[in-house]
Amino acid sequence: MRPSGRALDQMRPVSLEIGFAKHAEGSCLIKFGDTHVLCAATLEERVPPWIRGQGKGWVTAEYGMLPRATNTRMQREAARGKQSGRTQEIQRLIGRSLRAVTDLEAMGEMQITVDCDVIQADGGTRTASITGAYVALHLALRSAVERGLLPSVPLIDQVAAVSCGLYKQNAVLDLDYLEDSSAEADTNFVLTGAKGIVEIQGTAEDSPFSEDQFMELMDLAKKGVAELVELQRQILELE
Amino acid sequence: MRPSGRALDQMRPVSLEIGFAKHAEGSCLIKFGDTHVLCAATLEERVPPWIRGQGKGWVTAEYGMLPRATNTRMQREAARGKQSGRTQEIQRLIGRSLRAVTDLEAMGEMQITVDCDVIQADGGTRTASITGAYVALHLALRSAVERGLLPSVPLIDQVAAVSCGLYKQNAVLDLDYLEDSSAEADTNFVLTGAKGIVEIQGTAEDSPFSEDQFMELMDLAKKGVAELVELQRQILELE
Amino acid sequence: MRPSGRALDQMRPVSLEIGFAKHAEGSCLIKFGDTHVLCAATLEERVPPWIRGQGKGWVTAEYGMLPRATNTRMQREAARGKQSGRTQEIQRLIGRSLRAVTDLEAMGEMQITVDCDVIQADGGTRTASITGAYVALHLALRSAVERGLLPSVPLIDQVAAVSCGLYKQNAVLDLDYLEDSSAEADTNFVLTGAKGIVEIQGTAEDSPFSEDQFMELMDLAKKGVAELVELQRQILELE
Amino acid sequence: MRPSGRALDQMRPVSLEIGFAKHAEGSCLIKFGDTHVLCAATLEERVPPWIRGQGKGWVTAEYGMLPRATNTRMQREAARGKQSGRTQEIQRLIGRSLRAVTDLEAMGEMQITVDCDVIQADGGTRTASITGAYVALHLALRSAVERGLLPSVPLIDQVAAVSCGLYKQNAVLDLDYLEDSSAEADTNFVLTGAKGIVEIQGTAEDSPFSEDQFMELMDLAKKGVAELVELQRQILELE
Amino acid sequence: MRPSGRALDQMRPVSLEIGFAKHAEGSCLIKFGDTHVLCAATLEERVPPWIRGQGKGWVTAEYGMLPRATNTRMQREAARGKQSGRTQEIQRLIGRSLRAVTDLEAMGEMQITVDCDVIQADGGTRTASITGAYVALHLALRSAVERGLLPSVPLIDQVAAVSCGLYKQNAVLDLDYLEDSSAEADTNFVLTGAKGIVEIQGTAEDSPFSEDQFMELMDLAKKGVAELVELQRQILELE
Amino acid sequence: MRPSGRALDQMRPVSLEIGFAKHAEGSCLIKFGDTHVLCAATLEERVPPWIRGQGKGWVTAEYGMLPRATNTRMQREAARGKQSGRTQEIQRLIGRSLRAVTDLEAMGEMQITVDCDVIQADGGTRTASITGAYVALHLALRSAVERGLLPSVPLIDQVAAVSCGLYKQNAVLDLDYLEDSSAEADTNFVLTGAKGIVEIQGTAEDSPFSEDQFMELMDLAKKGVAELVELQRQILELE
Repeated sequence: MRPSGRALDQMRPVSLEIGFAKHAEGSCLIKFGDTHVLCAATLEERVPPWIRGQGKGWVTAEYGMLPRATNTRMQREAARGKQSGRTQEIQRLIGRSLRAVTDLEAMGEMQITVDCDVIQADGGTRTASITGAYVALHLALRSAVERGLLPSVPLIDQVAAVSCGLYKQNAVLDLDYLEDSSAEADTNFVLTGAKGIVEIQGTAEDSPFSEDQFMELMDLAKKGVAELVELQRQILELE
Repeated sequence: MRPSGRALDQMRPVSLEIGFAKHAEGSCLIKFGDTHVLCAATLEERVPPWIRGQGKGWVTAEYGMLPRATNTRMQREAARGKQSGRTQEIQRLIGRSLRAVTDLEAMGEMQITVDCDVIQADGGTRTASITGAYVALHLALRSAVERGLLPSVPLIDQVAAVSCGLYKQNAVLDLDYLEDSSAEADTNFVLTGAKGIVEIQGTAEDSPFSEDQFMELMDLAKKGVAELVELQRQILELE
Repeated sequence: MRPSGRALDQMRPVSLEIGFAKHAEGSCLIKFGDTHVLCAATLEERVPPWIRGQGKGWVTAEYGMLPRATNTRMQREAARGKQSGRTQEIQRLIGRSLRAVTDLEAMGEMQITVDCDVIQADGGTRTASITGAYVALHLALRSAVERGLLPSVPLIDQVAAVSCGLYKQNAVLDLDYLEDSSAEADTNFVLTGAKGIVEIQGTAEDSPFSEDQFMELMDLAKKGVAELVELQRQILELE
Repeated sequence: MRPSGRALDQMRPVSLEIGFAKHAEGSCLIKFGDTHVLCAATLEERVPPWIRGQGKGWVTAEYGMLPRATNTRMQREAARGKQSGRTQEIQRLIGRSLRAVTDLEAMGEMQITVDCDVIQADGGTRTASITGAYVALHLALRSAVERGLLPSVPLIDQVAAVSCGLYKQNAVLDLDYLEDSSAEADTNFVLTGAKGIVEIQGTAEDSPFSEDQFMELMDLAKKGVAELVELQRQILELE
Repeated sequence: MRPSGRALDQMRPVSLEIGFAKHAEGSCLIKFGDTHVLCAATLEERVPPWIRGQGKGWVTAEYGMLPRATNTRMQREAARGKQSGRTQEIQRLIGRSLRAVTDLEAMGEMQITVDCDVIQADGGTRTASITGAYVALHLALRSAVERGLLPSVPLIDQVAAVSCGLYKQNAVLDLDYLEDSSAEADTNFVLTGAKGIVEIQGTAEDSPFSEDQFMELMDLAKKGVAELVELQRQILELE
Repeated sequence: MRPSGRALDQMRPVSLEIGFAKHAEGSCLIKFGDTHVLCAATLEERVPPWIRGQGKGWVTAEYGMLPRATNTRMQREAARGKQSGRTQEIQRLIGRSLRAVTDLEAMGEMQITVDCDVIQADGGTRTASITGAYVALHLALRSAVERGLLPSVPLIDQVAAVSCGLYKQNAVLDLDYLEDSSAEADTNFVLTGAKGIVEIQGTAEDSPFSEDQFMELMDLAKKGVAELVELQRQILELE
C-alpha cells in the first residue's frame, strides 16, 4: 500500500555516523532513508546575554537545507536575506526538544549550538534532525567532561522524534516525501527514552481527524521512537 | 489553586464584539479575560500567483502585537525589520486552522486575509486569535454572499481553539499569563464544531509529561472549545 | 459644503479615554471622528547610549497602523521588513512635539516611549496621535511622581495638533479622509496651550497657495487646538 | 552677530554650475557657501507601475550624503542597509516641491528622477538640493524638447527653497551649520517664482515660537527665494 | 618545512565522488585533503530576465559554508540576513570560471546553477569549489544531452583551480589552512585544460612580492591544475 | 586603433587635486580622463573591536558610485538596502592595497577610513580609487604628524593601480569604458613605488588568454604605475 512497499509500522532504514565533522565538538550524520542530515554541535564557554550570571547553561539549534537537497532547487536563504517561517519553526522545535532532556543548571555557564543541515531531503527532516542532534549534543557534552569542564554528562534522558500520518486513511509510521505530500494528517512526536512526551505537533492537511485516529498515530510513534532510542544507545555505547 | 481563583476547568470570561473595524469586510474584537485581539478580514478578488488559474480560493492570516500589549514593552517588529519566529509560527497556525474548515474550491478565485492584532496580552493570544478570526472570516464570506459574489458561505464547520496546561501538576483550562509562565506543559488544541482535530501543539516546558496527562488536557480542550463554538454561534446568529 | 456637513471651522467629535492599555504607565485612546489611535506610554529608567551620563531624560515616539485601519488593506510593515518613509516622518514629528513641552533636564535619566497605533483611520492620524500622545505622556510622568521617581511632572505646557486645508478653495478645519484626498493644500499645526508654535508643516497638493490663505489656515488651527487643549485639561483634571 | 559676519538678511554666496555630470540629461552643481550638492536628472521613457496607462508623467527625487560630507564621518547608508528617516523625509520633500511646478499631464508617460548628492555639508542641504534640482529638472526637460519628445518644457513656474531661523532670538536668513545647531527655531520655505507657497516646515528646537516671529521668518524667506530664482533664470537663460 | 610534511610542489590528496546529491542533475563531492565541498548542479529550462530572448544560456554559481565547517563556528549567513563580501566574491569567481569554458550560445535558453557548499574547510575552498563545480556542470549538461535537450555537451575545455603561496619565503602548492593563515602571499589560479588563463588573483598579505616570485607561483599552479584536470578526465571518463 | 585614439601604452590624462573635501583629514579628487573619484580619509583615534588592545592601527576603505555616475542610472545602493557584490569586492581590494604599504604597528591605535566615491565613471574606477586613496591616506597621516599624534608618516612605500587589457587582441594600458566593455581580457595591477606586486586580478572575459599575453599586460602596468607614482610624488611634494 505504501509507495516504498514498507509495512504500515515500518521505519525507513536509519543510520547514524558519528565524527563526520572534524572541527565540531560533537557531530552525527543521520540518515532516515534518503533524508540525510548533518548535525554538528559547537560548545562555547559563554551564554547568551539574557541568561548571563545565573550560573546555568543553554542549548540551542539552527536548521538549514542545502538549496538542492530537494527535488526542485529552493532559493538559498542566505541569498534571500532571511530564514523562512518554516525554518525558524523547525529550529525552535529542535532547541526545545534538546533542552527538555538537558539539566541546564548542571551545565554551568556554557552554551551548545547544534547545527542541523539537511544535505538531502525526502520527508521527515525535522524528526531526523532532532534524533541526530541529540547524539551530537551528547558527544559535545562528553567532550566537555573529557576536558574537565563538567563532572558528568548533564543529560536526564534521551530524546528522539518520528513523524506519523494518515495516508489513504491508514496510520503509517515515518512518512517519506511521497506520502507526506498527499497525507490527510501529519504529526510529529518528540519522545524521551522513558516514553515521556516532549513535543506533539499534529496537523490535519485537508479535513479534521478524530481522537481515535490520533491515538493510533501516537502508538506508532512510540514504536518508532523506541527503535531510534536503541540506535542512539548503540552508537553512543550507552550501557 | 489558580492565581485567578478559577476552577480547573473554567475558562476566563469570553466576549466577542463584531463590526469593530469599520473598513474591514468582517471584523471581531475577541476578549479572553485581559487578552484582547482585534481580528479584521479583508476580501480581495484575486489569489496569490502560485494558486492562480485553478479556480479556487485562499485564506491566510497575519498576526501582530502592539509593542505595549505586554507587561514589558517589546520592540516593534516593523522597526526591528523582521517578524520573529514566534510571530510567523502563530500566523501560519491561524491560516492553517481557518483553511481546514473552508471549502477553497467553492470560494472561487478570491482571497481572504485575516489580520489578528493583539491589543492587550495576558496569555492565550493564539487561541483567542483563531477563535475570533473564524468569526471575522465568516462575516467576510457572508458579505461576499450579500454582494452576489458567492451563492453561499463556503464553510464546512466552525473552528475554535483553547490552551490547556499542567499547572502545579494539575490539568487546567485556558492558561493566563501567570499560569503560562510557570506551567509544566503547555498545549494548544484547535478543534472543529464537530470535535474533529485540526491542530494539536503540545510542549513540555521543563520535564516530559505522560500520555495520561495529555488525555486529560484533551478532555479539557473539548469542553472549552464547545463553549467557544456556542459563543460563535450566538454572535453569528447561526441556527 | 463639506462631505460630512460640518461647518468650515468645525472639528469632528473628539473623545479621549484614558487607561485603555492595562500594562502601560500611561495610555489614551483618542478619537477624531472615525480616526482612532491608541497611545501607550512606556517609562524606562535608562536612556539611549548617546545621551547617557548627562543626567537628562528622553522622550520618543513610534507610530504604526493596523493593516486594515484603512479602506484598502495596506501591507503590514513588519512583514514588508521596513517602516515606510511616511511612518518614520510621522513618528519623528510626534517625538519632537512631545519634547518641545518636556523639561528633559528635570526628568533625570529616564526615557518615555509613546506608541501611537492607529486602530482605524479617517484622516488626521498624525494630529490625533500627537494630541493623544501628550495625554499618555502626562499620565506616565504622573505615575513616576506617584512612585517617587520625580518630584513633579516635568511638563512646561500642553501640546496638541490639528490639520487644516484648502478644500474647494475654502479654508477648513480638521480634514477627514474624503477632504484630505482632494484638498488643494494640507497643513498640520502643532501648538502649545499658550499658542506657541511647535511645528508647522504645510504642503500644496496641486498648485501653490498664497500667504493670505496660509494665515486663514493658521487661524483655524488656533481655534481647533484651543478646543483640544481644553479636552486634555478635562481628562487630565488639570486645574 | 552671526558667526560668519553676514547681515541678518544676507544669504551665503550662491553659485550654480550646469553640465557637471557628463552622462545625466540635466545636471547642476549648486553651492550655498560651503554646502555643495550635485543634482543630476535622469529621464526615462517609462513611468512607475501605479501611474502607468494614464498618459501622464512623474517626477521624483533621491537624496544622499557622502559619508565625509560632514564634520564627523557618518556611516554610509548603503553599508548600514537602509536610508535614515531624515534621508527619506528630505527626498520626499524634494520630489513634492518639483512636482508642484511641473505639468505632469503635459509630460506624457515619462519619468524624471533627480539625484541630489551632498558632496560637502554646512547646513541647508535640503534647500540647496531643491534649488539645484529645479535647474537639473529644467535642463532634462529641455533636452527632451530638443530630442522631439515634448513640444515645450512642461514647467509652470520656478521653485526654490531657503531656510530661516531664530538665532539668538534674531530672525536670520540661510542658516549655516554653526547657526543651525544652536538655533531656537528652524524653518524651511519652498516658494515659487510667483511667491506661491509650495511647502513650509517649521520646527521649534527648544521652546515654542510666536506667530509674529514666524511672519518675520517668512519675510526673510521671500527675499532669499527671490534671489535664488533670479540666479536660476540667469543660468538657464530664461527671458 | 610544510606543517603537513608535503613537498613544496605537492598537492593534498584529491578525491572526486560523483552522484552524491540524489536530486541534482549533476553532483560531485570534492575533497582537497580536509577541505570537502559538495557541488550540485541544477538545470532549468529558463534564463534570467536580462538574457531572455537571445537564444543563449547562462551558467551561475552560489557558494556557502556550513556554520561549523571551520574551526570556530561562524554565524549562519541566513540568520545574519546577508551574504558576506567574501561569499559574494567567491561565488562570482566560480560563475565566471565556469562560463569561460562554456559555449553559452550552444546551450540555448537553459540555465545551470551550481551550488558549492563547504561541508568542511581547511583552506582552498574556492579552488576546490571551481574544480568540483566543473564536474557537476559537465554531468548536468550530459544529462541534458541524454534527455534530448542538447545535441552535445557545450563545453569548450575543462577548468580547474589551485592556490599557491609564499610560505616562509618558499613558493608552495595548494595551501592548507595553517599555511594560508601565515603565508606572505596568496594566489589563486584558474586555468583550462589547455593551460589558458581564466582568472588570476594574487594578494600580498604583508609586504609586496616580486615578479620572479609570481612566476614561480604560476609554474606551481600549472603543475597542480594539470593533476586536477587529469582527475576530472578520469571521473568523467573523458577520452 | 583605440576608440580614444590613444597609443597602446598611453594612459588617459590623469589629474590629482588635493583638499577637495573641507572636513576630511585628507582628500583627493582624482581623474583618469572622464573617470572622477573623490577620495576622503577620516582619522579616528580608535580601532575596530577585533584589533583593540594590540597597540596597532587599521586602514580600511569604502566605495560607492553616485547613481548617475554611469551612462544609464543605477539603483542607489542605500535605497536597495544593500551593497552589491561588486561594491564589496572593490572596497575590500582598496583596503588591502592601502594596508600593504602601511606600517600598522607604527600607527598605534588609530583607524583611517578612506571613502572612495565615484562622481563620474568611464572605466577604471577601482584603479583610480586606489591611486587617489593613497594620496588621501598620506595626507591624513601627515595631519596626524602635524597634530603630534605620530612621530612620522608610517608609510613604507607608495601604491598605485592601473588596468590593462586585451582589446582586439592588442595589449592596451588603462582601459576606458568603451574598451572595457568589449575587451577579451581585463586585468588590474596594484603595484608599489618599488614595483612590488600588491594585488593582481586578471579575468578572461570570453576565452582564456596565454601566459605570454599576461606578461605583456604586466609590462604595460609597470609603465603606467610608474607614471602614477610620479604624479603622487609631485602632488604630495615628496622628495
